Amino acid sequence: MGLFPNASKAREFRVVSGGVTAPQGYTAAGVHCGIKRTRKDLALIFSERPAAGAGVFTRNRVKGAPLTVTAEHLEKGPVRAIVANSGIANVCNGPQGLADAREMAELAAQALGLKPHEALVASTGVIGEPLPMDKVRAGIAMAARTLSKEGGGAAAEAILTTDTRTKEIAVEWETGGGWVRLGGIAKGSGMIHPDMATMLAFLTTDAEVDEAPLRAILKRVVDRSFNMLTVDGDTSTNDMVLLLANGRSGVRLESEEELAGLEAALTQAAVHLTREMARDGEGATKLVEVRVSGAASEEDARAAAKAIAGSSLVKTAVYGEDAYWGRVLAAVGYSGAEFDPGRVQIAFGDLTVAVGGQGIAYDDEQAAAIMREPEIRISVDLGSGSASAVAWTCDLTYDYVKINSGYRT
Amino acid sequence: MGLFPNASKAREFRVVSGGVTAPQGYTAAGVHCGIKRTRKDLALIFSERPAAGAGVFTRNRVKGAPLTVTAEHLEKGPVRAIVANSGIANVCNGPQGLADAREMAELAAQALGLKPHEALVASTGVIGEPLPMDKVRAGIAMAARTLSKEGGGAAAEAILTTDTRTKEIAVEWETGGGWVRLGGIAKGSGMIHPDMATMLAFLTTDAEVDEAPLRAILKRVVDRSFNMLTVDGDTSTNDMVLLLANGRSGVRLESEEELAGLEAALTQAAVHLTREMARDGEGATKLVEVRVSGAASEEDARAAAKAIAGSSLVKTAVYGEDAYWGRVLAAVGYSGAEFDPGRVQIAFGDLTVAVGGQGIAYDDEQAAAIMREPEIRISVDLGSGSASAVAWTCDLTYDYVKINSGYRT
Repeated sequence: MGLFPNASKAREFRVVSGGVTAPQGYTAAGVHCGIKRTRKDLALIFSERPAAGAGVFTRNRVKGAPLTVTAEHLEKGPVRAIVANSGIANVCNGPQGLADAREMAELAAQALGLKPHEALVASTGVIGEPLPMDKVRAGIAMAARTLSKEGGGAAAEAILTTDTRTKEIAVEWETGGGWVRLGGIAKGSGMIHPDMATMLAFLTTDAEVDEAPLRAILKRVVDRSFNMLTVDGDTSTNDMVLLLANGRSGVRLESEEELAGLEAALTQAAVHLTREMARDGEGATKLVEVRVSGAASEEDARAAAKAIAGSSLVKTAVYGEDAYWGRVLAAVGYSGAEFDPGRVQIAFGDLTVAVGGQGIAYDDEQAAAIMREPEIRISVDLGSGSASAVAWTCDLTYDYVKINSGYRT
Repeated sequence: MGLFPNASKAREFRVVSGGVTAPQGYTAAGVHCGIKRTRKDLALIFSERPAAGAGVFTRNRVKGAPLTVTAEHLEKGPVRAIVANSGIANVCNGPQGLADAREMAELAAQALGLKPHEALVASTGVIGEPLPMDKVRAGIAMAARTLSKEGGGAAAEAILTTDTRTKEIAVEWETGGGWVRLGGIAKGSGMIHPDMATMLAFLTTDAEVDEAPLRAILKRVVDRSFNMLTVDGDTSTNDMVLLLANGRSGVRLESEEELAGLEAALTQAAVHLTREMARDGEGATKLVEVRVSGAASEEDARAAAKAIAGSSLVKTAVYGEDAYWGRVLAAVGYSGAEFDPGRVQIAFGDLTVAVGGQGIAYDDEQAAAIMREPEIRISVDLGSGSASAVAWTCDLTYDYVKINSGYRT
């Protein structure tokens, strides 16, 4: 069974290097301007020509000021730049926060010769602290001066908070009209829970795509990638996923088949970034992939997968390398999914540990070996239908507590 | 503002000793029969005369076998005994689990000269392991032989799992017809989340109360006590709250006022047990009480309070003794409650830290002193109405991870 047993277009795309600047017509930069002590903290992504833009934002009612500004700008037509800072989330800062977010977009636009609404803005970091705008101003100027085709990696660095490594991906594929590319960068790594997270993901493609299909595709893909990721159950105030399509490849994607190809490529990239965020979740030692099949509806499959991935008890058991299927079944039980506990089958990796809702005898050595792996796959067949879903998380460890009990100090 | 600003009957009752056997006509016992290595693991509570019974059960779709049996028996009329074991939850054990739960009730009934349906049964502990029925049989016989008026404490001990101490309460109050008492015991301390928890609570009163009002009162009280407790977001398979009313005091509670008195006494007892469970949550170093006021509806107030209490980021911040109000506001934001972030006020203890949805300057020394306390009160005024709610939790610590990563080993 493939990763998305329901998806007909589960083809693989060729992975290329370069992340967000791999597609034609994009440059990027990442600099240190002093919001954080030493690490890069300001990223800029630039498209040499106007790009159709699509965005998906947190459903948290408390929203960072940048989200308001970015949503407004996306409504005004094509866009050409994304400016993002890490270290401070610019949320809960009242009118000053909104003014600061607007100024960030204006400064980026000015430096790049754009109209203000052609620049999108994002922030991630501590809640409730004001942005040091003098530093941000200098940072944006510096980033604009250092934009380059090789800057994708620096931009990926500059959006990190508690992440321990960058997350990048780029793929390419051949269409009727020629080769196109899609690239992306993302950051985690705590306050992550459907829907959306303290998570930023910026994706670019050099295909030409109309805004309407671009937005529909982004929404569907986010629903089965980033929105199926949970680290700690806390939905952040500042999450956003942005996708730009600048048409620089000269290839226009319009037919149903061409758009399906784009959706499949975007899915591959988004799932890759999602898995990398789970793997690098705060304090994580293991990546956990939860596959639920045999559900009566996709909604049930998603609810069950998310509940398992969100269970502190499942996550601590994984940290303890214990194939404790009872906690998995209990999580499905409170997920809201319709099912008969007596028909459930559960496996860790390839080892089936429960059938008919009851434990079965299995090889302890084999279970121990599976649980020692850095990637744990939990498969649950509800035996109630044919729908399925996949969710991702990490284990819950001492270090998660350590990181989050001392985050502001 | 009192604990329940919406409740008109927030009077205080006299606390007496004796727990579940403080009311007249009840005896209890707690013994070690070998399910657990050394600690007591089998509890028996006995009413010398038939008692009206009421129960509230987990909404987890995966239910322990004892819940099925107990719900059936409650439908058959008055009850006289509760038998409960700890160590193994008797859930996910198929038909054998159900047979074992029925046998536990039958054995208790036999030993006490009752009909089988007069005994209720409960279990808590590991999921998916069979009960060692030879040990359980011996344990029930032993418990029946050692029932006593002083046995409440032993019963309270025998239902514990990862709890570090017993939870008991008893109160008395004068009614028109004379003095009546109400007592209870409970256990936590992980897999606790609304609705209900790996939580057992058994309550007794010597008042005479009809079944219908008794059940209505229990449901209402559970909704604003035990169901407002979260330790780790995992709703258990085995939770139940049972309330017996045996009328042994000779006092019948029937009028609206008398039943309101019972409800207030039950609330006091249930809130006490809830707070004790939060204080003794797995790995807890602090009890956290979350008070939400100014909500547009009670539903919103409850949703907001539960979201704050359930936030891993709030709980780790409390462990880190950081008055990080931004995480509190973010949790309200994803709670589903209707509110305007710009009108929210937040306080830790008596120290207001945010007004109008933004941080204000406050005395760091005072904040540090408040956060060092073993009890932390977080008050949030949504500024959107007059409804309120209270929820309880504990901090999230290294020891929670330690306990749950090694629970089965």
